[in-house]
Amino acid sequence: MPPLRTALLQSSGRPGSVAGNLKVLDEAAARAADAGAGLLVCPEMFLTGYALGDRVPLLAEPADGPGAGAVAEIAVRHGLAVLYGYPERDSGEDGPGRDGERRGERERDGERIYNAAQLIGPDGTRLANYRKTHLFGGFEREWFTPGERPVVQAELAGLRIGIMICYDVEFPENVRSHALAGTDLLLVPTAQMHPFQFVAESVVPVRAFENQMYVAYVNRTGQEGEFEFVGLSCLAGPDGAARARAGRSEELLLAEVDGERLSASRAANPYLRDRRPGLYTALVRADHS
Amino acid sequence: MPPLRTALLQSSGRPGSVAGNLKVLDEAAARAADAGAGLLVCPEMFLTGYALGDRVPLLAEPADGPGAGAVAEIAVRHGLAVLYGYPERDSGEDGPGRDGERRGERERDGERIYNAAQLIGPDGTRLANYRKTHLFGGFEREWFTPGERPVVQAELAGLRIGIMICYDVEFPENVRSHALAGTDLLLVPTAQMHPFQFVAESVVPVRAFENQMYVAYVNRTGQEGEFEFVGLSCLAGPDGAARARAGRSEELLLAEVDGERLSASRAANPYLRDRRPGLYTALVRADHS
Repeated sequence: MPPLRTALLQSSGRPGSVAGNLKVLDEAAARAADAGAGLLVCPEMFLTGYALGDRVPLLAEPADGPGAGAVAEIAVRHGLAVLYGYPERDSGEDGPGRDGERRGERERDGERIYNAAQLIGPDGTRLANYRKTHLFGGFEREWFTPGERPVVQAELAGLRIGIMICYDVEFPENVRSHALAGTDLLLVPTAQMHPFQFVAESVVPVRAFENQMYVAYVNRTGQEGEFEFVGLSCLAGPDGAARARAGRSEELLLAEVDGERLSASRAANPYLRDRRPGLYTALVRADHS
Repeated sequence: MPPLRTALLQSSGRPGSVAGNLKVLDEAAARAADAGAGLLVCPEMFLTGYALGDRVPLLAEPADGPGAGAVAEIAVRHGLAVLYGYPERDSGEDGPGRDGERRGERERDGERIYNAAQLIGPDGTRLANYRKTHLFGGFEREWFTPGERPVVQAELAGLRIGIMICYDVEFPENVRSHALAGTDLLLVPTAQMHPFQFVAESVVPVRAFENQMYVAYVNRTGQEGEFEFVGLSCLAGPDGAARARAGRSEELLLAEVDGERLSASRAANPYLRDRRPGLYTALVRADHS
């Protein structure tokens, strides 16, 4: 398979303006497609903006809701896959979670909303929907229910695509689970804030290296409500090098994800073969949490 | 407790010359003690050198062997703790391992040798002995048996000290196990070779950050037999910053390990509290290995 040219949309976002964000997406998709990209990755909560405050329930929609339909139209129009973040109102597709104690406060009203990211194929098909498993901070914990499926994948252009969101990638366990499930390219829409630049600059490239995969980390940028997002989106390769790296401004990054180069890197790097799972049992014991 | 000033001895080593290496250690310990250090950390296989070829069995000794005695004399003479790497002939202290299939080839001769590191206290007491669990490359696999205890710790100067060796630290699971066991300062003697500089430069600081601990990564440097060691020793703090960083030459680095600063960093950083061990079960399944 030829390499998958991947576009990363580092964007500021317009909180509450779904139409405005879809317009930004449509323009970015046109530019990405013109540049030969087969996949466009947007930040966390791109559809609605992140700093929604108590408007989260108003703007949440099911995985097959009107926002998904609008994104699918954009994907079809420009002939590329799109990964976008959004607040998902439980559509029942995943069934109830396994961990009954970890629920957003809002579930007391019988309502579950997830911080989700959905991958739509170039033909408009919904390929995968992921619900953030590791929520960050007071805003997210107030409004969202954590997801219960650590590994969500889809096939695209001969690559196994994985999805997680922001804080998830900071836990080495989560990315390792993807590596063990064969993820080639991990898409990480994010809303990374000051002062956590170290995550974008160092943690993300190390995740790509230690797990022998590509990682596309796509951030918001600029001030939004109470949050200051730091940009620094990047696409990191299995050698730990950033193939593309944004600064602090709005930007459409382009980089290649090369399955053959990935296979060669994995053959030369024995991390996954040299693991000793029998020695790692402390990592799954509940008494540490 | 006041901070523990820690000295990192980045050294070239003299393969096969235990007396020569002990002389280097004695001089370094004098300098470290003069500078107020309470702990001196040496590279992997410091006592004998790393590039031993088939002399490994000749130079291996039990954990309470003559090399240990000589290091204890140095520790007492200068009044500081010393962590040194050496080839350990099985002294029976640890009993048989749990994993009968993973043995060095030499064990067919009824002989077990470990790539070990031992911590000796300022009073000459042997505080902890660790056997490398993740062996790297053909030389190590030919001569050494992998250890079976992932977490080995000791108390020193009010800190919980952990020990691992070189390749071990590249597996996020190993360092996480230490974090869950409360390690404050992880000592990592290493023999890091070209072209793996990324590990010293990026992986080690990320390990310190993602696990909220200090990591002292102490490398050999220069050519030794067939190996080219890359130096770049560092002491990384829980914010991911290198408090001290060596270049490629022989060097005695000094940096502070501050328990109060560590406590404050942990209080502000919720990684260990926000883990969800129930989602990480893939990491301990044997079918991936």
